[in-house]
Amino acid sequence: MEKNIKLTIEYDGTNYHGFQIQPDVKTIQGEIERCLSLIFQKTIKIYGAGRTDAGVHALEQVANFKHSTDKSTGLLHRALNGLLSEDIIIRSVEEVPLDFHSRYSARNRTYQYTILNRPYSGVFFRDFVYFYRYSLDVEAMNRAAGMFVGTHDFSSFCVKSDDEKNYTRTLVRFKCWRSGDLLISEIEADGFLHMMVRILMGTLVQVGRGKYSFERLGDILKAKDRRQAGPTLPARGLCLIRVGY
Amino acid sequence: MEKNIKLTIEYDGTNYHGFQIQPDVKTIQGEIERCLSLIFQKTIKIYGAGRTDAGVHALEQVANFKHSTDKSTGLLHRALNGLLSEDIIIRSVEEVPLDFHSRYSARNRTYQYTILNRPYSGVFFRDFVYFYRYSLDVEAMNRAAGMFVGTHDFSSFCVKSDDEKNYTRTLVRFKCWRSGDLLISEIEADGFLHMMVRILMGTLVQVGRGKYSFERLGDILKAKDRRQAGPTLPARGLCLIRVGY
Repeated sequence: MEKNIKLTIEYDGTNYHGFQIQPDVKTIQGEIERCLSLIFQKTIKIYGAGRTDAGVHALEQVANFKHSTDKSTGLLHRALNGLLSEDIIIRSVEEVPLDFHSRYSARNRTYQYTILNRPYSGVFFRDFVYFYRYSLDVEAMNRAAGMFVGTHDFSSFCVKSDDEKNYTRTLVRFKCWRSGDLLISEIEADGFLHMMVRILMGTLVQVGRGKYSFERLGDILKAKDRRQAGPTLPARGLCLIRVGY
Repeated sequence: MEKNIKLTIEYDGTNYHGFQIQPDVKTIQGEIERCLSLIFQKTIKIYGAGRTDAGVHALEQVANFKHSTDKSTGLLHRALNGLLSEDIIIRSVEEVPLDFHSRYSARNRTYQYTILNRPYSGVFFRDFVYFYRYSLDVEAMNRAAGMFVGTHDFSSFCVKSDDEKNYTRTLVRFKCWRSGDLLISEIEADGFLHMMVRILMGTLVQVGRGKYSFERLGDILKAKDRRQAGPTLPARGLCLIRVGY
């Protein structure tokens, strides 16, 4: 009988060319499919909830695949974690209804972007934060973030691609807060465009530095022109936190 | 005029053979001396407060050195951080009285040991925690830790060396607490013997698993025999947090 298996995956994306499989480079999907194919002794293809870019991390990425063997979820969990290298960990393996699809069934996705904001950088979490030396006004950034909540055309905040016809997304939540030297932003939406979080964050940093006014943010949204927004922040600060179903 | 310079140093010890300089291998001291020698165009030797072992980290290691040039602390700070690789960071550069010696002036040292205690390991802080799968009784461990506070001969909790004549140390504080999936231990003493924190932690883990009784801890101390204590935990969980003067 066919079974549909949901994987919840934690990874350090530093040494990978993103989630999605590509020829000749190391990707998260490629590594997991390689291990599953070893376990099942045949080619297994998984479907991921979101395509994180090179260097982007995940606390709870979701993927699913189908199989028709009697291998238990417990066995799959142990076998996968035994085969994968230490920068990818399967947090859970669950059997789900056959119509579950990690990408199409997803109702929302949450990302965090973390900035180390102090005069000197740090060694401990250097692959997971963007180091920014100059002081940032987190209250202004949080207020600016709130202005993006709602349904908007985010053309100014993405890299366009031929696959994408619709640039409207609904931001459910976008908040910034300080925790010691870290400035953490959390953003939840029904879906994200390519580079969207990193461009939104680059724009918020301009606000935090006092370089963009709140009024300007509205103008940038209306312009539907990527060149109006702030720079794209580096991948290392970005982490896919949760996919909601 | 001669100046005495105090460096406060943060490092990820993963890729180093410890703090202390050794021929033919990469050490923290070796890297800092190499950069200082470039800056001063002559050989500079630094003195560290503690010799952390291979793979051990530091949040605030301290070292000092002397020079007689007009280079300011601000210039030294920027130049060092510009030359050092991203796993070593100079947190501060201060001019201190000429009689200050990072090692001999130190009154106490504080270490943290961090255990990731949950059924599956984690990718994000994997170089900075020891992963332990089975559940640990943190209250028992904290009570056991408290029993070591005070002045004792710690011969059972170290690797002896010919340099060391005196195995008595005074533990000022030794506490364990849980923070989410992390079990953090903090230990402060006037000084530490070789491998002392890692052997004490290996012994506490046996208590946390219910394998050693509280009574047994007293027997181990009295035995003055390394073989009576628990195993040495890995370096990766250990971090020198602070040196007090």
